[in-house]
Amino acid sequence: MGGGFGGLYAARTLKSAPVDVTLVDRTNHHLFQPLLYQVATATLAPTDITAPIRWLLRKQRNTRVLLAEVTGFDLDGRRVVCDEGALELPYDYLIVASGARHSYFGHAEWEKVAPGLKSISDAITIRQRFLMALERAEKAASEEEKRRLLTFVVIGGGPTGVELAGMIPLITRRTVPAEFRFVDTTKSRVVLLEGGARVLPTFDEELAAHAHRDLVEMGVEVRTGAMVTNVERGAVTVGGERIEAETIFWAAGNECSPLGAMLGAPLDRAGRVQVEPDLSLPGRPEVFVVGDLAEMHTGGKRVPGVAPAAMQSGPRAANNILRLIEHRSTVPFRYRNKGDLATIGRHRAIAQLPSFRMWGYPAWWFWLFLHIMYLAGFRNRLSVLIEWGYSYFTYERGARLIAGGKGLNR
Amino acid sequence: MGGGFGGLYAARTLKSAPVDVTLVDRTNHHLFQPLLYQVATATLAPTDITAPIRWLLRKQRNTRVLLAEVTGFDLDGRRVVCDEGALELPYDYLIVASGARHSYFGHAEWEKVAPGLKSISDAITIRQRFLMALERAEKAASEEEKRRLLTFVVIGGGPTGVELAGMIPLITRRTVPAEFRFVDTTKSRVVLLEGGARVLPTFDEELAAHAHRDLVEMGVEVRTGAMVTNVERGAVTVGGERIEAETIFWAAGNECSPLGAMLGAPLDRAGRVQVEPDLSLPGRPEVFVVGDLAEMHTGGKRVPGVAPAAMQSGPRAANNILRLIEHRSTVPFRYRNKGDLATIGRHRAIAQLPSFRMWGYPAWWFWLFLHIMYLAGFRNRLSVLIEWGYSYFTYERGARLIAGGKGLNR
Repeated sequence: MGGGFGGLYAARTLKSAPVDVTLVDRTNHHLFQPLLYQVATATLAPTDITAPIRWLLRKQRNTRVLLAEVTGFDLDGRRVVCDEGALELPYDYLIVASGARHSYFGHAEWEKVAPGLKSISDAITIRQRFLMALERAEKAASEEEKRRLLTFVVIGGGPTGVELAGMIPLITRRTVPAEFRFVDTTKSRVVLLEGGARVLPTFDEELAAHAHRDLVEMGVEVRTGAMVTNVERGAVTVGGERIEAETIFWAAGNECSPLGAMLGAPLDRAGRVQVEPDLSLPGRPEVFVVGDLAEMHTGGKRVPGVAPAAMQSGPRAANNILRLIEHRSTVPFRYRNKGDLATIGRHRAIAQLPSFRMWGYPAWWFWLFLHIMYLAGFRNRLSVLIEWGYSYFTYERGARLIAGGKGLNR
Repeated sequence: MGGGFGGLYAARTLKSAPVDVTLVDRTNHHLFQPLLYQVATATLAPTDITAPIRWLLRKQRNTRVLLAEVTGFDLDGRRVVCDEGALELPYDYLIVASGARHSYFGHAEWEKVAPGLKSISDAITIRQRFLMALERAEKAASEEEKRRLLTFVVIGGGPTGVELAGMIPLITRRTVPAEFRFVDTTKSRVVLLEGGARVLPTFDEELAAHAHRDLVEMGVEVRTGAMVTNVERGAVTVGGERIEAETIFWAAGNECSPLGAMLGAPLDRAGRVQVEPDLSLPGRPEVFVVGDLAEMHTGGKRVPGVAPAAMQSGPRAANNILRLIEHRSTVPFRYRNKGDLATIGRHRAIAQLPSFRMWGYPAWWFWLFLHIMYLAGFRNRLSVLIEWGYSYFTYERGARLIAGGKGLNR
């Protein structure tokens, strides 16, 4: 269950197997999460990076798709409880792939002020706030208010934070300046706050330093070792300093889906389920956990919570189920690291692959190529290609919609 | 003010005039309203039929765009009050083009159950409800519940109602059936209720009859002379009969923006401002009202509340302002009726033009051509063309997104 990379790829693996598959997700769509920041920054439309799960699996006759919220498990009775008990699904084998959300490290009240970026609704919220800040700056009465409205703080220097922070100056400096009469959007300030010693800590130090320099050249104020101690409406406090900013985005941490805790297995600090090497739940050989929700290991090293790990662990769990049905023993999961990629801005990216590293132009084109390749469904791929082609040559953004009156009065 | 057809076309008319123009709208986007029903039925994405007003007017250096809500007027002091007084805009000349919303004829409580279709948020709401009904039917326990979930009632037989009702069977019969396992979506029931004697009353009787037959052939149950006496969650009562339906859409009536009443001029029954022949407010030669908000006449006949009337009256008001500045007398508005168009479904449409009438294939292609021509901004035109081409050949719909968990638990 779960319509992300883990669940979807697991379901696809079972395509021609003699089993009945039910995929449950609380949304109707599969989301291509790696491009979510592009929706948040008004470059792609929400429909460009989503596809109905039902549509993706329409030709798989042994599979049904249910839009429902899983709210509990009856592991002894082998049932999944949905919609607070309104629906119960019996199972012989179960794969749990419900992923992660952002974590506010115990400060749940920060979420309202500093939205995170995990779902398509999150992206629409961030787009709304970002565009509204510019609109409000245009009608602001005082210079001080304008400054606050044109200050954007991104908390967290991982890939999501870097990508978000990198897109903002591109838009405020290149896309929109000619459209505003009373405010100079090129004077916008973008601050990226990272608590650790450097941005992109999962990358090589040298590559991360490259990305850091790129961000600074693009006009992002990068602060490392910056521990955020308070987030409130209109300001972030970091190391005693108070930064006045209307718009604050959160990209600092993940926390697993609460479903992990309902499985009754030991969890790690981030709430990930500690699974057996074959991805099954300790003591429950018929239940598997994959993707961001599982704490998986390969060669003694922890597997990172990235899309390729989900794409690989889903099929592994599915194949192990097929082996169990055939009374064969399961196979341990081995993560094959195909490399890490992060994009920083136009013509700027870094790529860390098993056999080589890239940065700048080639890395950016490589990133572009890979993401278009992986986009699920031919349709979206074409439409993303057009949007990107258009943005690339004109610097315009195709999806600058503030829907309805929402956000107008906040 | 107003970023619809009336306001936008008025602002464009003033492009090279020696005046300072301020366009105020409570959203950031111009909406191509004639295609709104295509967003509601998941064919086009919201960003396909919207464009930031700011972007549309970016090259017009004498014009500024403000995202604000007009909340009142000080006509003697020549000021527009925005955002409950937070912002006041002085003016020498004023054009009011704030349009219309749907009217529930005194039953405001029906709005929650039966949403109407005027804004992009409305369209997203309708899309959400339509898609959720199918999702819920797939997991419904009883046949009775399935039937209720697969019954769609559209109230109002004008162009919007006909277009909405026509799209639903296209999707339930052609686009999605292969994706559902437990429910036969081709058995969906679509009921179109019209209080008057026939659908599309503004068209020739013969053409309207054509459209009526088309709807019936497509599988829509059309009922004329059907007065709705009650709308509640899960049912519509019409002429003593209670139709059980989970999904109910409202396309029955318009009501003007409340700003009309704040102008202190006489209104007609629908809330339209009764303007002078030159579109000015009686006794206020410096204030003009255009578009759906104005009750305009040409040759003794009332001008209908359609997009072309707004596109023509906006520039007329703008030109009259320029004439007043040059101390010349104003010119009365003359509506040139270029014809009426309504589309019913694939290859089905009707067109009533001054010199000829069309239906079926040619009318449908004509409709397609005209709407692509009129779409504001080159970008959207291209992307709509692609979406339509794709839908035309594959019957797929490109925008079947239910965002977030919204609507899940209703």
